[in-house]
Amino acid sequence: MKKVYLIGTGLIGGSILKDLRVHYPQAIFYGIDHNDAHVEKAKQNGIIDEVAQFQELKNADLVIISIPVDATLKVLPQVLDLVNEHALIIDVGSTKEAICKSVENHKNRRQFLAAHPIAGTEFSGPDAAISNLFVKKTLIICEVEKTTFKLQELANELFEKLEMRVRYMTPAAHDKHIAYVSHLSHISSFMLGKTVIQEEENERDIFDLAGSGFESTVRLAKSSPAMWTPIFAQNKENVLASLDGYIENLSRFRESVKNNDHQSIFQDMEETNRIKTILKGIENGK
Amino acid sequence: MKKVYLIGTGLIGGSILKDLRVHYPQAIFYGIDHNDAHVEKAKQNGIIDEVAQFQELKNADLVIISIPVDATLKVLPQVLDLVNEHALIIDVGSTKEAICKSVENHKNRRQFLAAHPIAGTEFSGPDAAISNLFVKKTLIICEVEKTTFKLQELANELFEKLEMRVRYMTPAAHDKHIAYVSHLSHISSFMLGKTVIQEEENERDIFDLAGSGFESTVRLAKSSPAMWTPIFAQNKENVLASLDGYIENLSRFRESVKNNDHQSIFQDMEETNRIKTILKGIENGK
Repeated sequence: MKKVYLIGTGLIGGSILKDLRVHYPQAIFYGIDHNDAHVEKAKQNGIIDEVAQFQELKNADLVIISIPVDATLKVLPQVLDLVNEHALIIDVGSTKEAICKSVENHKNRRQFLAAHPIAGTEFSGPDAAISNLFVKKTLIICEVEKTTFKLQELANELFEKLEMRVRYMTPAAHDKHIAYVSHLSHISSFMLGKTVIQEEENERDIFDLAGSGFESTVRLAKSSPAMWTPIFAQNKENVLASLDGYIENLSRFRESVKNNDHQSIFQDMEETNRIKTILKGIENGK
Repeated sequence: MKKVYLIGTGLIGGSILKDLRVHYPQAIFYGIDHNDAHVEKAKQNGIIDEVAQFQELKNADLVIISIPVDATLKVLPQVLDLVNEHALIIDVGSTKEAICKSVENHKNRRQFLAAHPIAGTEFSGPDAAISNLFVKKTLIICEVEKTTFKLQELANELFEKLEMRVRYMTPAAHDKHIAYVSHLSHISSFMLGKTVIQEEENERDIFDLAGSGFESTVRLAKSSPAMWTPIFAQNKENVLASLDGYIENLSRFRESVKNNDHQSIFQDMEETNRIKTILKGIENGK
């Protein structure tokens, strides 16, 4: 593996390259980004060796696509058109169904691997890239059987070096599950932030009362709208279903508060305390 | 200050005593708790010197009440009945209006100070008590003018030693603001946990996909139902108002997703990104 091209020099792509550079010191790392400031910054930060152009992808041994998922739908088929026959193309977007569908009949489909690393922070851009972001984190791979054995092998080697826990799923199962554990969390956090900001417009100094609990619950509301808008759009049906469940639970809780049904309030919270054991299980499993 | 009595040997009360012991090495610290295991544990952990009984409060120089807010409504007037005339009584509950109201006509009202430290974790009980929990955290004091000058002075000395940032508010303003920045955060987190657990009952392995984003947003769902049920009950009207605002924002967001109104989705998130600056302001201010 001599030439690695990263399309999208942001948090996720930048963090992947930071780690790959350690394990593949002989490789040359190229960056492609429609945002000139980002790709220049990535070079300054030592994430990439050189700024590259799209046409150069024909020289690639590995292409990593780490851009908003609506852009991936357009860019991925173009990348598959361009690359030479031994190259591996990996996309790391947060949705998988539409992306897999976009290349299902492409003649070079077998060079593509659909992946989603469950890792990140609320920050974005090349300055947000950090080393060892993926250690012990889950990586979902979809439709692995559609990728050639040889390129599966190369991908496994890469993810092993990043120390990720690999799990295999269908794109449909991925998009459904991730709507609950990731997309809904972001919406709940954004809308919490919005509700409190609205109240603050009427009431001064409200944020002086915010503690670490609010900070933790609202953390994801710092996330990038450019990245998250297309995710919600592409995963529309699952996001709507998760939101329906959430709004229904909130409305029922509201009814219990309104009706002074303290037993229901208590029980709801006590049953949800089970999240402690579940989260501990995740930590221990990792 | 020779004799300090703590009623309720949990996270908050225990953490206060851990710090006070450092600053008042000559004082003796007593613990009162209807939970025998908790008060024994607090003694084992060195949080208190002795287990005490309610009647002994007549010997107190300082009484700290740190129990669920429904219990405070009953216990606080009884404590004011019992104490000697120089004692300071502080309650640290998360609601202030009903508690202040419960003693507004008590003959010893001027020995009471209503306070709320905006600090804590999602854990509870004496084992959850930690040192330096309150450093640079906000402390809300309500109706300060109803406490005698001398006892205001003692309270200020205590909070200064804990290194807290003191703010003064009316009980009504406190309860309204805190509904948004604290109580609503807890409900949003509990209901997120509930929604995901419900989905997991149908779909196995969903939690294998949970990352740090979900963990952060759902953290408060580990909180104690025994503590939180009476808080929501006592702050009913403000909690309902905050929930109404939250559910309305979620429903509007849902409509935008449903109608493919990507511009509204983007704008909603971009405007809420303002939370970054606000939270940074809080950190810098502290």
